[in-house]
Amino acid sequence: MPELRKDPVLNRWVIISTERSHRPIDFQPEYDHYAGFDPASDAFAGGNEHMTPPEIYAVRPDGSPPNGPGWTVRVIPNKFPALRIEGDLDPRGYGLYDRMNGVGAHEVIISSPDPYLQFRDLPLSHIVEVFATFRMRVEDLSRDRRFAYVMVFKNHGQSAGASLRHSHSQIIATPIVPKRVLEEMDGARAHWKLKRRSIFVDIIDQELLMQERIVYENDQMLAVCPFASSFPFEIHILPKRQCSDFRRITPEELRGLAEAVKVCLAKWFGALGETPYNFLIHTAPNDTELSGVAEEFPYLDAYFCWHLEMFPRLIRTAGFEWGTGYYINPIPPEEAAEHLSGIEVRVS
Amino acid sequence: MPELRKDPVLNRWVIISTERSHRPIDFQPEYDHYAGFDPASDAFAGGNEHMTPPEIYAVRPDGSPPNGPGWTVRVIPNKFPALRIEGDLDPRGYGLYDRMNGVGAHEVIISSPDPYLQFRDLPLSHIVEVFATFRMRVEDLSRDRRFAYVMVFKNHGQSAGASLRHSHSQIIATPIVPKRVLEEMDGARAHWKLKRRSIFVDIIDQELLMQERIVYENDQMLAVCPFASSFPFEIHILPKRQCSDFRRITPEELRGLAEAVKVCLAKWFGALGETPYNFLIHTAPNDTELSGVAEEFPYLDAYFCWHLEMFPRLIRTAGFEWGTGYYINPIPPEEAAEHLSGIEVRVS
Repeated sequence: MPELRKDPVLNRWVIISTERSHRPIDFQPEYDHYAGFDPASDAFAGGNEHMTPPEIYAVRPDGSPPNGPGWTVRVIPNKFPALRIEGDLDPRGYGLYDRMNGVGAHEVIISSPDPYLQFRDLPLSHIVEVFATFRMRVEDLSRDRRFAYVMVFKNHGQSAGASLRHSHSQIIATPIVPKRVLEEMDGARAHWKLKRRSIFVDIIDQELLMQERIVYENDQMLAVCPFASSFPFEIHILPKRQCSDFRRITPEELRGLAEAVKVCLAKWFGALGETPYNFLIHTAPNDTELSGVAEEFPYLDAYFCWHLEMFPRLIRTAGFEWGTGYYINPIPPEEAAEHLSGIEVRVS
Repeated sequence: MPELRKDPVLNRWVIISTERSHRPIDFQPEYDHYAGFDPASDAFAGGNEHMTPPEIYAVRPDGSPPNGPGWTVRVIPNKFPALRIEGDLDPRGYGLYDRMNGVGAHEVIISSPDPYLQFRDLPLSHIVEVFATFRMRVEDLSRDRRFAYVMVFKNHGQSAGASLRHSHSQIIATPIVPKRVLEEMDGARAHWKLKRRSIFVDIIDQELLMQERIVYENDQMLAVCPFASSFPFEIHILPKRQCSDFRRITPEELRGLAEAVKVCLAKWFGALGETPYNFLIHTAPNDTELSGVAEEFPYLDAYFCWHLEMFPRLIRTAGFEWGTGYYINPIPPEEAAEHLSGIEVRVS
């Protein structure tokens, strides 16, 4: 059973996931998982459905039965889950320390049956289906009262942490609210207390006023290189309609989001060539006994806003970033946005 | 001039360091800085002192003049500093946002004149000199009233962020207190308010009681794999004498610290082979007008404790870690400590 442990100084939880354990001798930091890629042994490929655990959900336009071909997007449990779906949290003290069982969900969303098709090359209608699948899985997992948070994220490329080449995203449901999200909630609450406005709405207004960091815009979404970008070419996609909860995204917004992500990826690859990247979706947490969200953040819905963060992995973090929690970004976001704006892309 | 910008949601500063800027096309994430290593063009090597900016400080047992051979440890300004030593902070609003000039210091401590000698292979007496140099530089930089914090850190190996092969460490002085250090101070203050004890003293007592995560111990220092280790084989070295300020380390403690670091490095390399790693020293910040430490943390000296954190870079962080602020560690610290304890090393 994986275990959640709390740092006694930093108030930060760590997942000790023994099921992913290796013997010390097995560590090969630079091992190339991609070199031996063979579509015949690609468990995520269409026709190889028997090589994965049974599917949780799939988009099957042809009405085909589960766990066979015919799907366009497929959700399966992660074979090496960081957290386990079975059991109770059982939070306990251990001397000075705090621990609980590593209960949670860890799912894989396979972008398409094609082993070689990258996320950015999927047709827009297909990317909409992937995002609709994200929304559906977040909604379903949120119903489990043990989970305080559900996060969608994607790792593309080895140095962005993707251990498999076939395009996929992941969803993790955790019994605790992630530290990063709590920090966003804290910051947004402080702004709310001062202004009675959503900081996210204020950021959108500021960016539209300044016109210095906008990468792309449609009726539903604004894509900007944030004023305090931690990474070169980092992009945040914000919905123009203030809404704390990704589950309440409308069909028009889903399409606007998919289009914004596809355009931004195309601009990145136009500017930078093939590059590893990550994206993730932040949404409001669930109120549970452990998370205590309703008690601590009573008006969260008015001031927190779901959003998507994406960043290419161009620079390595080192002792400075780890020791300070601050980042050194060699490219001002205004320059990045100008460069990306100049790259013309056609999306269909 | 580099710029410090504050994230309006996260209360996190970012250094936009245009002087380190590259054109987009120049990014080569996997470029091998080490492949063409040539000692003749190694600016850090003994005899090549003219290839660096003039030295700030050097340990010269033979009494030789500055900027020539004869030194054992040498401190120079970083040629590509993340922050600039000249100028005022000039904090200003920019619409909704906050910024200030990127004023600070960024120095390089060259471990030895030998291009090939790695830090872990230096004799103990030489490592003591390096740590004494750290202490001296922290003390000197702390006298500048613009700086709220001085952090020492070391990157070893490319995937740990070291762009040069010749063994070296770095010191950065910043006008703001790092977020990670503020979080440690917050956590330690909360414990102090509840218990009127230093959490660091309580951790040492707990670890000595449990005897499950101790890697090494001498009269001055305790080296443990922390209960909530973020990374496999992470080690924290804590002084047994509660003391908030690294500048007040005694000569005996300096020797005990150097010995603990050398032993832990030797154990790592025995267990893991050649591995990239980082270490860093956390100490109490300076009270400045901007940091407001004396106002916010009046008894800091009683409950904060300087310490050294070190971790090998065995796993890649990805979307999950960035999006949550939590880490997944596949090796329980008890297993790591047991493995490391079993590795016998002789230090001289």
